[in-house]
Amino acid sequence: MLNVDSNNVLAGKIGSGNGIKDTELSVLCDKYQPLVGKVFAAKKQAGYNFLELPGDMTLLRKIKKFADEQAKQKWENIVVLGIGGSALGAIAIRDALLKPFQQTPRLHIVDNIDPAYLSALLSSIQISKSLFVVISKSGTTTEPMVQYAVIKEMLMKKHPKNYQKHLVFITDPKSGLLRKMAEKEGIVTFDVPQKVGGRFSVLSSVGLLPAALAGVDISGLLRGARDITESIKKLKGVNNPALLLATLQYFMDQKRSKSMTVLMPYSNHLFRLGDWYRQLLAESIGKNPTTGPTPINALGTTDQHSQLQLYVEGPNNKLIIFFRVLKHAKDFMVPNVLPKEIGQLNNKSMSRILDASYLGTAESLAKASRPNLTIEVPKIDAKNMGALFMLFEFQVALLGLLYKVDAFNQPGVEHSKTITKQLLS
Amino acid sequence: MLNVDSNNVLAGKIGSGNGIKDTELSVLCDKYQPLVGKVFAAKKQAGYNFLELPGDMTLLRKIKKFADEQAKQKWENIVVLGIGGSALGAIAIRDALLKPFQQTPRLHIVDNIDPAYLSALLSSIQISKSLFVVISKSGTTTEPMVQYAVIKEMLMKKHPKNYQKHLVFITDPKSGLLRKMAEKEGIVTFDVPQKVGGRFSVLSSVGLLPAALAGVDISGLLRGARDITESIKKLKGVNNPALLLATLQYFMDQKRSKSMTVLMPYSNHLFRLGDWYRQLLAESIGKNPTTGPTPINALGTTDQHSQLQLYVEGPNNKLIIFFRVLKHAKDFMVPNVLPKEIGQLNNKSMSRILDASYLGTAESLAKASRPNLTIEVPKIDAKNMGALFMLFEFQVALLGLLYKVDAFNQPGVEHSKTITKQLLS
Repeated sequence: MLNVDSNNVLAGKIGSGNGIKDTELSVLCDKYQPLVGKVFAAKKQAGYNFLELPGDMTLLRKIKKFADEQAKQKWENIVVLGIGGSALGAIAIRDALLKPFQQTPRLHIVDNIDPAYLSALLSSIQISKSLFVVISKSGTTTEPMVQYAVIKEMLMKKHPKNYQKHLVFITDPKSGLLRKMAEKEGIVTFDVPQKVGGRFSVLSSVGLLPAALAGVDISGLLRGARDITESIKKLKGVNNPALLLATLQYFMDQKRSKSMTVLMPYSNHLFRLGDWYRQLLAESIGKNPTTGPTPINALGTTDQHSQLQLYVEGPNNKLIIFFRVLKHAKDFMVPNVLPKEIGQLNNKSMSRILDASYLGTAESLAKASRPNLTIEVPKIDAKNMGALFMLFEFQVALLGLLYKVDAFNQPGVEHSKTITKQLLS
Repeated sequence: MLNVDSNNVLAGKIGSGNGIKDTELSVLCDKYQPLVGKVFAAKKQAGYNFLELPGDMTLLRKIKKFADEQAKQKWENIVVLGIGGSALGAIAIRDALLKPFQQTPRLHIVDNIDPAYLSALLSSIQISKSLFVVISKSGTTTEPMVQYAVIKEMLMKKHPKNYQKHLVFITDPKSGLLRKMAEKEGIVTFDVPQKVGGRFSVLSSVGLLPAALAGVDISGLLRGARDITESIKKLKGVNNPALLLATLQYFMDQKRSKSMTVLMPYSNHLFRLGDWYRQLLAESIGKNPTTGPTPINALGTTDQHSQLQLYVEGPNNKLIIFFRVLKHAKDFMVPNVLPKEIGQLNNKSMSRILDASYLGTAESLAKASRPNLTIEVPKIDAKNMGALFMLFEFQVALLGLLYKVDAFNQPGVEHSKTITKQLLS
């Protein structure tokens, strides 16, 4: 099970100017405890409805059945056309759970309209051997619709009679442009859940269907999410991981001026979970000039050689959250060939060296009074990924209540869209 | 040529609370003008010596000759083992100048010691068809040495008599562990320049050799760097791009509380240039509690659907630097198939839609009094990449003088290394 180690945020370890006394932390968590119940009580409401996703066994069966059928087509590529909440969950799942260099089928997620990049992708795949998953709730999102228009034309040239079999839409169950197109043209569809926002939708069709088509154990994702939901329901105060994370992040931002939250996994495979979290935190809480810690991605050990200098000696304005993987999927022993100056590396496993690097970094930050905490992940599998998604979603729902903002809208992006539309009209 | 558009930082556009009056900007740039001469005057000194790299025609010829010889080996993979300054330049070059999905040879850069990731990489390549480039100045950097130890053992098993031909070292010209090993075992070496720090070394063997082996036009990189160096030498005040960038970043951080600098290219191919810049800025300037804006990577349009909400309505604590590519390598026309609700997208080129998205975003940020500036890149080629590297290196050298910190050391990372070493001993 996931574990949160908050030792390096305590005043006893890093000083009271930047840390929090353990008694104060307990008091705060107890004070905020009712918010947990409030989130659960709201689970039928728009936004909070993400809590119901992991229990949808009907959808799970439907997706599995469809994925099994599609497996017979032996697709070489599953290509997702989507952006933001329609892309970041699938990317996080792919990078965590699929082999990075040799997937069959390969899972591509096109979350931009850079023409040079799209061209390079399309010239590297055979569209005859590709299934395209178009994701947009309304069907008005510029990026997937532009991508779709370009790809549909290619498909219709190549397969005029049955281009539809290369397409699946994930869209609003009833209304919207994509829904209309699907009905007219006979394209298979899955639903974007109506009461869940894009950035909370990874455990719906939006994240599950691409994952299942690429061979991910989606039952495990849901099981992990259900398990941690139970823990969050049961555990109290500082023992509740979502409550502890929310309390600390809120306290560190508002009372200790840590205006940035750095996610720093010691695993390449969890790096892009950080991108998913970036959207979740930024769009949910960044609502006015006094709310919204800025999320930042980093990677251990890589960023020890890039960002650590700043984190240790620069402005003390960050809360750093490490991910420590307790068991990696593979390991290497360093053979006894290195000279004595670095002889401590000989006959050690690579995972042990990685872990010692994490410990050194966390400790050196603590010594410099920089608050940091660690999420321990037993291993990177579907169950733990499901748990991480749900943990953070719940945490951010709590943050919405703490900051007193609507965690489920994003009014600030409309103006940019309006100007862009005017420029193109 | 690169152009810096600073319209959206001006008080006339975004208000005087967050912007700067154009007269004040001129006065400041003129005041700091002497620092430009100071950097040039120091070019023979340690640190500042990066200025001499683009003029080294002897090295250019040597690298080209070696790359030509190696091309005959028909390597399928060039694998760089390095981290931080020994990796980030090559990654930025690769992503900007090589095709993302179909390189021959493929350029892999292993900048971590995640065993699961390394295992996946190694099982996807044939080491018999791979050339490994090991980069470490001292030969004591944990990550490349650990990777090297593992790979050397594999090579010696497979090619006991001539494993050396699969190896090149880039290391200190005279001393250090890698140098010693190379001499003992007869491995080809190139030099890490002695008076240039890792994060300023992209235009030395460190960045040029991997690039040349992968087929990049390295003459173009150096030419672009020389050309912009001339401009920086000649142009005065606000017309000097390095001086303008340094002045604005310093002013926005110190006088307008913009403690974060977001790099947001509207091009997938420039995204990882941001990672290179992250190290350059963070390690060079993050030296004490009052110095060091935190660098953040973002991507347009992708992060409009993730970070824009926070950037527009959240705390006004960021300076955003866009990259606008004027001509993309490829383009698509959107066919006339989209319904009238999004009909403005029909018959438009994808690059025009991308650009209109950038304009909408920049303008909406300006309307919300969020300072942003834009670096216009005519097209993504070797020349402009060389110019971008040199522009930012010079800018950061100027920032060192403005903030009165040593831009060329990184004392803050030592403590972490010491603890890690103790844990492993």
